[in-house]
Amino acid sequence: MFHILFLLPLLLSTSHASVNDFCVADLKGPDSPAGYPCKPPVKVTTHDFVYAGLAAEGSTSNIINAAVTPAFVAQFPGLNGLGLSAARLDIAPGGVIPLHTHPGASELLIVTEGLVNAGFIASDNSVYVKKLSKGQLFIFPQGLLHFQLSYGKSKAVAYAVFSSSNPGLQILDFALFASNFSSSLITQTTFLDPEQVKKLKSVLGGSG
Amino acid sequence: MFHILFLLPLLLSTSHASVNDFCVADLKGPDSPAGYPCKPPVKVTTHDFVYAGLAAEGSTSNIINAAVTPAFVAQFPGLNGLGLSAARLDIAPGGVIPLHTHPGASELLIVTEGLVNAGFIASDNSVYVKKLSKGQLFIFPQGLLHFQLSYGKSKAVAYAVFSSSNPGLQILDFALFASNFSSSLITQTTFLDPEQVKKLKSVLGGSG
Amino acid sequence: MFHILFLLPLLLSTSHASVNDFCVADLKGPDSPAGYPCKPPVKVTTHDFVYAGLAAEGSTSNIINAAVTPAFVAQFPGLNGLGLSAARLDIAPGGVIPLHTHPGASELLIVTEGLVNAGFIASDNSVYVKKLSKGQLFIFPQGLLHFQLSYGKSKAVAYAVFSSSNPGLQILDFALFASNFSSSLITQTTFLDPEQVKKLKSVLGGSG
Amino acid sequence: MFHILFLLPLLLSTSHASVNDFCVADLKGPDSPAGYPCKPPVKVTTHDFVYAGLAAEGSTSNIINAAVTPAFVAQFPGLNGLGLSAARLDIAPGGVIPLHTHPGASELLIVTEGLVNAGFIASDNSVYVKKLSKGQLFIFPQGLLHFQLSYGKSKAVAYAVFSSSNPGLQILDFALFASNFSSSLITQTTFLDPEQVKKLKSVLGGSG
Amino acid sequence: MFHILFLLPLLLSTSHASVNDFCVADLKGPDSPAGYPCKPPVKVTTHDFVYAGLAAEGSTSNIINAAVTPAFVAQFPGLNGLGLSAARLDIAPGGVIPLHTHPGASELLIVTEGLVNAGFIASDNSVYVKKLSKGQLFIFPQGLLHFQLSYGKSKAVAYAVFSSSNPGLQILDFALFASNFSSSLITQTTFLDPEQVKKLKSVLGGSG
Amino acid sequence: MFHILFLLPLLLSTSHASVNDFCVADLKGPDSPAGYPCKPPVKVTTHDFVYAGLAAEGSTSNIINAAVTPAFVAQFPGLNGLGLSAARLDIAPGGVIPLHTHPGASELLIVTEGLVNAGFIASDNSVYVKKLSKGQLFIFPQGLLHFQLSYGKSKAVAYAVFSSSNPGLQILDFALFASNFSSSLITQTTFLDPEQVKKLKSVLGGSG
Repeated sequence: MFHILFLLPLLLSTSHASVNDFCVADLKGPDSPAGYPCKPPVKVTTHDFVYAGLAAEGSTSNIINAAVTPAFVAQFPGLNGLGLSAARLDIAPGGVIPLHTHPGASELLIVTEGLVNAGFIASDNSVYVKKLSKGQLFIFPQGLLHFQLSYGKSKAVAYAVFSSSNPGLQILDFALFASNFSSSLITQTTFLDPEQVKKLKSVLGGSG
Repeated sequence: MFHILFLLPLLLSTSHASVNDFCVADLKGPDSPAGYPCKPPVKVTTHDFVYAGLAAEGSTSNIINAAVTPAFVAQFPGLNGLGLSAARLDIAPGGVIPLHTHPGASELLIVTEGLVNAGFIASDNSVYVKKLSKGQLFIFPQGLLHFQLSYGKSKAVAYAVFSSSNPGLQILDFALFASNFSSSLITQTTFLDPEQVKKLKSVLGGSG
Repeated sequence: MFHILFLLPLLLSTSHASVNDFCVADLKGPDSPAGYPCKPPVKVTTHDFVYAGLAAEGSTSNIINAAVTPAFVAQFPGLNGLGLSAARLDIAPGGVIPLHTHPGASELLIVTEGLVNAGFIASDNSVYVKKLSKGQLFIFPQGLLHFQLSYGKSKAVAYAVFSSSNPGLQILDFALFASNFSSSLITQTTFLDPEQVKKLKSVLGGSG
Repeated sequence: MFHILFLLPLLLSTSHASVNDFCVADLKGPDSPAGYPCKPPVKVTTHDFVYAGLAAEGSTSNIINAAVTPAFVAQFPGLNGLGLSAARLDIAPGGVIPLHTHPGASELLIVTEGLVNAGFIASDNSVYVKKLSKGQLFIFPQGLLHFQLSYGKSKAVAYAVFSSSNPGLQILDFALFASNFSSSLITQTTFLDPEQVKKLKSVLGGSG
Repeated sequence: MFHILFLLPLLLSTSHASVNDFCVADLKGPDSPAGYPCKPPVKVTTHDFVYAGLAAEGSTSNIINAAVTPAFVAQFPGLNGLGLSAARLDIAPGGVIPLHTHPGASELLIVTEGLVNAGFIASDNSVYVKKLSKGQLFIFPQGLLHFQLSYGKSKAVAYAVFSSSNPGLQILDFALFASNFSSSLITQTTFLDPEQVKKLKSVLGGSG
Repeated sequence: MFHILFLLPLLLSTSHASVNDFCVADLKGPDSPAGYPCKPPVKVTTHDFVYAGLAAEGSTSNIINAAVTPAFVAQFPGLNGLGLSAARLDIAPGGVIPLHTHPGASELLIVTEGLVNAGFIASDNSVYVKKLSKGQLFIFPQGLLHFQLSYGKSKAVAYAVFSSSNPGLQILDFALFASNFSSSLITQTTFLDPEQVKKLKSVLGGSG
């Protein structure tokens, strides 16, 4: 009755069809507007779909008392082309993820430990801020300025998930004060006082 | 010097521009291929961007010893149009999220408690399975059959995040044995024995 | 009056503009999330836009009494990037295309010969089944389990057209019983009896 | 053992998730850039996924000895949002589908009867023409001028499938000579002789 | 010979096909993630495709000595769903369009009068700045902080064109200092000095 | 206090994240359906985001008394993947940009000098024509036949902006009469008289 041979033509004829089930990034290949070229399917293993880099706590022994550990396509090539990525946020008491944007993605925040105050500012300058506890979600629409900070007495941990495998991350203070954006242009385009600009550049290492 | 009045023309002229920063779902409106109509911006509040429904543990006192609690657009209207949604998985020891697909999204799994065995089957019938512990990620490409189960002695918790605000969820056993898909068509299209179909239909409540 | 020379600047200045009219796949290049790299336009000929591989009847001398002959991008490189592909279904009397999904595309079925019974199961376990005759169309939404079978006394032929140049094809029975998905995991994630699994694995060649 | 009650929470919690499996057009609702609003899921039946309007032969008793019968979203609401539509071409001997474009879709042609000569012109004015017989496919990239004609002694039938549920159809002769596009503007923008324009307008009913 | 009657079946059968050639926004309808519902095609006139609101010079008698006049979908409903919009920039000598982002679009700048200094900051804090004169173009990738200012002795005019019909506009200083974003949160998330925040809030009208 | 060292982990961990802020085309690489591969970020400079090629007037000393100067991705590689491109139109008095389509983009026209008569024809053969003056905008929906001509006594200049970095440009007269599209097929598929075809082919250089 049933006979294994009937499988051959079907399996052969669709042997290429699985290629686009996924497209694990070959990070050595050139990037493109749609992502990296695919690793040859024959070389793909289970490890390409797993990422352990967010299991360890990020160090918060720094000025912001916080850490952002990304699992973007550059760290987790299996995400390539699938419209998702993640980051782990560790925020010590008093720590803060400073105002920033993701130019290419919306962000869904999941608090898994501690207390997080999160918020964003919309195009019409409305401000949406909420204190979150474990298990609560917050959605930040694409490209808007937002922040997260710990407001409890113990450390907070959260996972940020993005609607792109490469969401980008532009931290406002770093863009202004850790870059070589000239102080003259900064004051002209932000109305900040030159002294303020000079002070933050000296802290954050900016030049220009 | 600086004068507040300069703001008026700018603010007025862009007063409508913020509408598409986000589009909180008006779930009473008709759905469309791109999602729900937007709630009027003037009625949007911070609560629209927050969801607390995943904070509570899902009940695992059921046959699969597991629970899937969704935070899709129907539960969390702020996700509308932003290409993201989530679900909380609670899996008691020995529990299992049976084989299923999400027809409209890829899934990124984040284990936050316990031990989870997860896997998927690709179009070319390759199988990718991995035992995961806390903090590890697994990516399931769109539309493929996959599962999660607890393999430890204590309960597992994980968050599944999706690349769509409405990813869909087709559970294989429910599609076959909890529906009114006729037993005759099931045996013809799956080669399962009629006795097997009958047995599972009686358990899962299927008819036809 | 009219003078051929006026053409030169216009034609020259737009000489590169035609590249993206189409992007015939260079199948030797690495795939990417958006498809294959383009064959150099200068090497493109009419043959790249034509495919004759569906003209011949597929052999139905097999266990399912049916054949699926694909015209996906791997077979018909001219489809690359254009969001379309096709397959020819030949179904002998009593033949069946078993339950399957296309993870990356919706499917429009056009019956051109004989009588076809077709159906799909939705996420909410609703079942949609219809007996079709020559010239009738059936649309299967993306990623859902569906089937086609012949219910007449003569052979049926149909064309399936997909909303992607590489829709994927996951046949349920092959995923479960022709793969190396372990029997233990199958029974845990489907509730099928071990005997049933063993029986179908022996027929379909699965291991594990 | 197995108990039906475990289904309740799962089924309830995902009861809205199936909405976007499909979105059958409510043609009375206003169209949008992404398509029509969805018919309420509770009113959807199998008939929404089936279309019989291409089963009948189109009349070729007209000046072009051919007929185009569309199955776009306006005729077949189940296609809404799924990125696919179709048309049936009936071409009597000597008949022709005049030069036309589909502004919003690529087209895959499947010849099912007779002999069809088909071709398109690319942006760089390259011409791709091929004589096709039964079972052969031809892909027309989006937005380019193309045609189909019968070159055999018997009638030809073909199905055109499109990468949009509403591909549009701009027939060159109708746009120029069956519209109220002023003759003066036509001669200025096409270099056709006024007499030619006048002649074709009188045939095709154009004014202006 | 030629006969007007042959047109009737063709024209009738495609009478709905033109709907999605365009989708002029009905701004009274609810917005959706894909844009506004379409104005009924029968009410569409040429005026829907024309916008004269950028013909007049914007007033630069304000603190920034500059004006941004938008032609987004809210002003120019014909743009709905077509992935394009525009704005006119008038910049008096010494004027500046302060640092801002467009959360939902890239921007192509075309200088048509005067001298413009333009620049943006990338995610890795690289700065790209260029002095532009009449007829030069500058492309600002989506979501990144950028600015334009006049550096000549006479007024500058430029057109900004966007890759969305509703690109959004988040002006950094307004988000921080013209909103009700609390001063405490600002200093925590930007490291600006409280005095600086207080000073700019008093100028720009912010509260909180 | 503030310490520069805190930056190191953050900056390092996101060092790859900026790649997809932009993807300047490497035009030597193979094109793909999503555009060209990216130039290595380390080689990108400000010049990649600037294009001066539209600053110079196009020569209108030709039969159409007009010029189209493109700034598509092939000329301005910084546009790659950003969904925008442009062209400069110079139209001498009496000049005309003949009927044409852009198969892959909608077009927004900005008149910056002189008087332009512009129009398009929709799928249902409706004609939309408008006389424009300086500063006025006209939107041409994707893929439809349209034209621009100068109707004033002095030269007109306009910028056309497109919703794709490679919109394509199919000029009707060139497609028909400057190609090798056979005269026999032209008359069959357009109903033009053979004499008309022959006359325009001799002017425009067509063969076949």
